[in-house]
Amino acid sequence: MTIDAAVARLKARFGAQAAAGASELDLHSHGEMHRGVSRPDVVLYPESTQDVAEIVRICAEEGCPITPRAIGSSLEGHTTPIRGGVSLDMMRMNAVLTVHPEDLDAVVQPGVTRTELNAALRDTGLFFPVDPGADASLGGMAATRASGTNAVRYGTMKDAVLGLEAVLADGRIIRTGGRARKSSAGYDLTRLLIGSEGTLGIITELTVRLHGIPEAISAAIATFPSVEAAINTVIETIQMGVPMARIEFMDEGYLAAFNAYSKLDLALKPTLFLEFHGSEASVAEQAETFGEIAGDHGAAGFEWTAHEEDRNRLWAARHNAYWAALATRPGAGTVVTDACVPISHLAECLLETKADMDASPLTGMIVGHVGDGNFHVQMLVDPDSEADVREAERITVRIAERALRLDGTVTGEHGVGLGKMRFLRAEHGDGWDAMAEIKRALDRQNILNPGKMVEIN
Amino acid sequence: MTIDAAVARLKARFGAQAAAGASELDLHSHGEMHRGVSRPDVVLYPESTQDVAEIVRICAEEGCPITPRAIGSSLEGHTTPIRGGVSLDMMRMNAVLTVHPEDLDAVVQPGVTRTELNAALRDTGLFFPVDPGADASLGGMAATRASGTNAVRYGTMKDAVLGLEAVLADGRIIRTGGRARKSSAGYDLTRLLIGSEGTLGIITELTVRLHGIPEAISAAIATFPSVEAAINTVIETIQMGVPMARIEFMDEGYLAAFNAYSKLDLALKPTLFLEFHGSEASVAEQAETFGEIAGDHGAAGFEWTAHEEDRNRLWAARHNAYWAALATRPGAGTVVTDACVPISHLAECLLETKADMDASPLTGMIVGHVGDGNFHVQMLVDPDSEADVREAERITVRIAERALRLDGTVTGEHGVGLGKMRFLRAEHGDGWDAMAEIKRALDRQNILNPGKMVEIN
Repeated sequence: MTIDAAVARLKARFGAQAAAGASELDLHSHGEMHRGVSRPDVVLYPESTQDVAEIVRICAEEGCPITPRAIGSSLEGHTTPIRGGVSLDMMRMNAVLTVHPEDLDAVVQPGVTRTELNAALRDTGLFFPVDPGADASLGGMAATRASGTNAVRYGTMKDAVLGLEAVLADGRIIRTGGRARKSSAGYDLTRLLIGSEGTLGIITELTVRLHGIPEAISAAIATFPSVEAAINTVIETIQMGVPMARIEFMDEGYLAAFNAYSKLDLALKPTLFLEFHGSEASVAEQAETFGEIAGDHGAAGFEWTAHEEDRNRLWAARHNAYWAALATRPGAGTVVTDACVPISHLAECLLETKADMDASPLTGMIVGHVGDGNFHVQMLVDPDSEADVREAERITVRIAERALRLDGTVTGEHGVGLGKMRFLRAEHGDGWDAMAEIKRALDRQNILNPGKMVEIN
Repeated sequence: MTIDAAVARLKARFGAQAAAGASELDLHSHGEMHRGVSRPDVVLYPESTQDVAEIVRICAEEGCPITPRAIGSSLEGHTTPIRGGVSLDMMRMNAVLTVHPEDLDAVVQPGVTRTELNAALRDTGLFFPVDPGADASLGGMAATRASGTNAVRYGTMKDAVLGLEAVLADGRIIRTGGRARKSSAGYDLTRLLIGSEGTLGIITELTVRLHGIPEAISAAIATFPSVEAAINTVIETIQMGVPMARIEFMDEGYLAAFNAYSKLDLALKPTLFLEFHGSEASVAEQAETFGEIAGDHGAAGFEWTAHEEDRNRLWAARHNAYWAALATRPGAGTVVTDACVPISHLAECLLETKADMDASPLTGMIVGHVGDGNFHVQMLVDPDSEADVREAERITVRIAERALRLDGTVTGEHGVGLGKMRFLRAEHGDGWDAMAEIKRALDRQNILNPGKMVEIN
């Protein structure tokens, strides 16, 4: 019972669906952030749920670790196979299986990315809202409980998924949830798997909620004299019940990066990017209400546009933030933080963080899904500089501890992976032990993404 | 190690907070529907989380069952202590601990009812939306994953709860979730406890999401020539993205009952009660869009009103549906079903069910949260008639099986309790075993509401 025995059996059984060449092992040794690089012993490319179940059964018999992954956009090392074994690459399971327009749901395989799903929906008048920066796979997004710019209106993956099919650690295939909009029938295994980062089961199918494309969409930009003015505008807007679709903060550093990367000409001041969804009348009314609140807080240059092209340019710039920041210093690596606090503590959390960055030798840019109280600092580091890496680490710890002190969480949407596990005791107390008890119950041998999420051996 | 030993220790320790008089034991032997009446050996009235933890530790040491309950509005026998032991009555833990208006959340104890919370919010401009028919406790609502008339807009308890404090089966106190609007930090223990019906932990505190009272609210009634016409109107309204706050169906039987019970004069035809929330302009626009769709389906008598008094009369009638039905036949008992299906299957499910009722000797009235695909049949039975009880059971089984055949669930919002456990294998397959594994992991001795939700011994 060894990894070697599992690898031999898997290669014999799966032929070309099993790969162990150096380049493939390297490619599967890390996610987007190279946190804890570690090669698997073999990469498997399942093409069906039955493939996944069979791979898991062989691994269970041999006690071989399995670390699922898809497109590899993880920022916290979730997909790094730190104990070797199998890297389970789900990207060949990439079919949109069924769209039910009348029920506003779709059934998809886990390797479908968010933009692929939206492309498949093009003629239905529907869309799938959850939009992390990367064009991530839906399986990965569910596994990390991802969100993005419009969670303030449409929720996170916790809200976007109605049901799952998953393979458990002994190869059993289960279905959770379903297509009904709500149910009180039993434990919420759907929500238990969402955010479990491949440690409790391998997601092989998702039923996701869709939304009608609004009759009218308008986008806007507003610049503010200070971070507080921007954040107070957000708080009042949310309190007024304006059903914002997107309300995104970015600081001067990012705006300069956007201008360079996306050929824009944005003012270098604390800025909100906004989007309003609804009927023509409702969108106009929302923009007007927001404009009044922003004006009270000294906003300048409030502009809104229903032009699709202008909107797309704005949001493309926002979605490319990560790359725009990296492009400001060729060769730089990056460390991204991910705090989320109650919105009443957001200004304090952001200002203290900004002071940290002002005092730090590192460059860090701030962007936030501020309607949810969630923000990121993207620091640029020389990956070969021990001082840079140590400083980025120091800032990361300070921000995580600050989020906890302010009633928040150490990760709003990026997940735990290797980066945030050390904070889970502080965030959850004895609840973290309960998580370990659940893990032990569902994965006795600890073969599913071992070493992540909980400490059990 | 016996129930008797536990009872003796609990009485000695808790004095007047422990009661074993016949009337109190009887009162705690059932919920609202007298399903599986069974007396506890003692009733405990904890006044703090520490009390709950101490009671649980004593019960754990003695292997004594504990069945939590609050106001007792359960319709499926969740709170019936079928193995005796302790009935844990949470109604003395009924404080609204903190309201954070700026963050739109509140921290409450589990014995607070939904109307008590809304009364406490009166001066804040905020409200708590989830509204089952009964004035249920928030702890019980979380434990059963309850919802109500406005889940189509505001979601169910799954969406309404940000975090919990709970006592586990060994007396450990854990906190789950938190006040941040979203988090990717670990397994979603909040959602695991919501809907777990007291079998995994005892909820001792809830942090709930609040919403701003809309600037404008209007209510409306529309009557239709047929059930299909009403349901097709609902489907199109949802597909158009009209952000309905409430969209409730009721049949002629209920309308007659409302007329008698609430002194109304409603037409006896398939009817929708509606509510629109938003700005003045948006509410008017929503009502207009709905009116057009309803008109296309032959609706008559579409009236809408922004008058608070008229609205309240309408919704009071709706909330009293259960009692109105009972009042049509003094002395009658009742059996209520609870199916939820994808909305595209709702008309089929309702029509087949209506045919069942037409062919049955029992009277049954139909009401539905049809925006979610959820509906109830309330049957009137003579509780002393074996034939009535058997017929109600036959209908209940037919509806549950029909819901499953139509991609739905056997309970949309009432929960499993004693009534729906027999269908969980059909609904969840091997997923039901995974639920049992989680139960075993968190409650090794099976003392928390034993005999419910999963079969483990």
